Amino acid sequence: MVSAEIMHGGKRAVDRCDLLGVAPFSDMEGGLYRGYLTPAYDAALREVGGWMQEAGMLVRRDPAANLVGRYEGTTPGAPALMIASHIDSVRDGGHYDGPLGIMLGIECVAALHGAGKRMPFAIEVYAFGDEEGSRFPAAMLTSRAVAGTLDRQALEIADRAGVALADSGVDTASYLDAARRPEELIAYLEAHIEQGPVLEADGLAVGTVTGIAAQLRYRIEVRGMAGHAGTTAMRLRRDALAGAAAMVLAVEQAARHDDGDAVATVGVLEAKPGAANVIPGAVSFTVDVRSGDEDRRDRVAQEILARLAEIAAARELECDIERIHDLPASPCDAGLMELMDAALEDAGQPVRRLVSGAGHDAMNLAAICPTAMLFIRCTDGISHNPAEHVTAEDTAIALAVMLRFIERLGETCV
Amino acid sequence: MVSAEIMHGGKRAVDRCDLLGVAPFSDMEGGLYRGYLTPAYDAALREVGGWMQEAGMLVRRDPAANLVGRYEGTTPGAPALMIASHIDSVRDGGHYDGPLGIMLGIECVAALHGAGKRMPFAIEVYAFGDEEGSRFPAAMLTSRAVAGTLDRQALEIADRAGVALADSGVDTASYLDAARRPEELIAYLEAHIEQGPVLEADGLAVGTVTGIAAQLRYRIEVRGMAGHAGTTAMRLRRDALAGAAAMVLAVEQAARHDDGDAVATVGVLEAKPGAANVIPGAVSFTVDVRSGDEDRRDRVAQEILARLAEIAAARELECDIERIHDLPASPCDAGLMELMDAALEDAGQPVRRLVSGAGHDAMNLAAICPTAMLFIRCTDGISHNPAEHVTAEDTAIALAVMLRFIERLGETCV
Repeated sequence: MVSAEIMHGGKRAVDRCDLLGVAPFSDMEGGLYRGYLTPAYDAALREVGGWMQEAGMLVRRDPAANLVGRYEGTTPGAPALMIASHIDSVRDGGHYDGPLGIMLGIECVAALHGAGKRMPFAIEVYAFGDEEGSRFPAAMLTSRAVAGTLDRQALEIADRAGVALADSGVDTASYLDAARRPEELIAYLEAHIEQGPVLEADGLAVGTVTGIAAQLRYRIEVRGMAGHAGTTAMRLRRDALAGAAAMVLAVEQAARHDDGDAVATVGVLEAKPGAANVIPGAVSFTVDVRSGDEDRRDRVAQEILARLAEIAAARELECDIERIHDLPASPCDAGLMELMDAALEDAGQPVRRLVSGAGHDAMNLAAICPTAMLFIRCTDGISHNPAEHVTAEDTAIALAVMLRFIERLGETCV
Repeated sequence: MVSAEIMHGGKRAVDRCDLLGVAPFSDMEGGLYRGYLTPAYDAALREVGGWMQEAGMLVRRDPAANLVGRYEGTTPGAPALMIASHIDSVRDGGHYDGPLGIMLGIECVAALHGAGKRMPFAIEVYAFGDEEGSRFPAAMLTSRAVAGTLDRQALEIADRAGVALADSGVDTASYLDAARRPEELIAYLEAHIEQGPVLEADGLAVGTVTGIAAQLRYRIEVRGMAGHAGTTAMRLRRDALAGAAAMVLAVEQAARHDDGDAVATVGVLEAKPGAANVIPGAVSFTVDVRSGDEDRRDRVAQEILARLAEIAAARELECDIERIHDLPASPCDAGLMELMDAALEDAGQPVRRLVSGAGHDAMNLAAICPTAMLFIRCTDGISHNPAEHVTAEDTAIALAVMLRFIERLGETCV
């Protein structure tokens, strides 16, 4: 179905993700963790920068420490198609969530460069530094900076070890200068593994993304009374962890009761003081709620918050709820979706559209240009896990589709 | 009720505990944490050693880094009454859990020394280094070493930061030489805050301890499947944290259903990988079960383990259960309890006996000599908490009782 050249590019994209999955490009032993601005991050940027140069791009790091490769169009200085994804990972994550989209951007440029071809627009490949928010208590810092939607106050953060962003190798005074102007960009394209089971269930390699599900995220603080585990009678306890446990189950139950696509997750939970012989006096945890439908998401979130308040009251616990994310559903551009569908047909692929349950940098770039996304099938829908897997064949098909998308985008510019 | 001198001693014992509750005797800011062999630990030993010397004792550190002060009896080298408690604390703990018993031992010797009086036995005041187990994954290392019941293998441990006990300022090769021989000791006496509400409810300052409740402790590992929080449908999840939450509630419920003194606690819970947008794939937690009655304790523990297995099976989770402590009930010596009751009467106190829900170093020393314990009322039964409180008046009464106990013990030796 795809040429040997494109098959080679697809395989190289996957191989490069695998290479980036281990030391020195990972900060953990026996698995992958690449946090924003860590030593592994720096090593990865140097490696990827080399690949961008080989593919014919001029390479720079922007003020948010994003890596940027630019391949000029027929006219130097022309507005650009941005092809991007993120280079950071969650802790003990997979190799492809993020990096695969960057590698495919590089392969697109490599294919054009190899054919001596330039488009009416430039192409800029971005490796965004922070999408997952796995180091600092914020997510998508860098694509928000590029989109110009990041607040300066959001930079006053520190990681779990207490290291401030400002002391981590970026200059927070100039950080927001990473912002691009709308007139510099004609469109945004991101390829990403699906991280879900839909394409696999339908036997499809790739699909057009219609948009990104609405997200809500909360940080919950539960406070009871610490005490000695051996001497405090059960009836006298105000155990913050037992209360938080009831809340975790309430979060699960609210999403299970929903008859649609809503999901709700407690991903982080910390109990203090954290000794086997001490009743926990304080627990903090996160709640993440999503749905393709904002109203549905909000209904589930309201049910969760009501149950949390009931549980806290019944157990005489204090419960503080802070909303830390509220991301509306972010639809992709209608015209670009049609272009993507046509590119799928050009590449001999059935047309399939699907929504993204996960957030992506695309949702931020939508603030300054039309966006398009292409999903690639991954095994068993597994992601954020070392077992994450994608085939070279599917990746090659994605590359073929992206090259046709670029070709067709060029035609609309004439 | 008590003399001005004894009142002064009681107040000084409390004041000294307060002094030890802050830097440089604490390893945390804004609260007390004094882990075994930390800088705060070392500073505390130097300070307490000075007080022991002032009280007339010869002071040394034993091979387990316990601080030992010896006050000779009428015959030099005579066997000793050991008066002891622990100098370490839990994280963010109170000032009195442990140190108060040491300070009272010093006050007993100071009173004898001030009166120029020696007993037919020596008195050795021990400040045990590790009772809480809040730094290394083991508890009561040091009193077990002194009792000669510690296994050499138990020394092959490291703290959370990965620092081995052997690299923490003790020589593990000679560590077990801290052991005392039964012929060196005539008895063991420990005063300790009750850490429970019984004495306060009965309006009593002090009480004779009958023994220490039986304890069981488990470490539970729950493994499910990590996955992306936005894209994994609820019905496809194997969420280790949701499963662990159901288990935490089962632990609480099993102890609540008991109609006696059983308590059960999950004090430590850690969820991995620990990111807001990742379904937790693994959770580890501790379960601590206690009762004055071993059979009751075992019944509650069996119910808990059965429920854990049911929950794991229903949620398709793996669940490993490791028993990390099994401490039988440890009764105090019947003869010494009578001596303590008599000392209470001597000091004008009502006689009251009560069981200890918490473990104490006394339970280990029972292996080599008869043991006695005196409980002191604490406010609201609160312990392992910064709000832990004891009055100078109650402490002075405890001192008066202990001096009478020593006096009566001397009479039995004649």
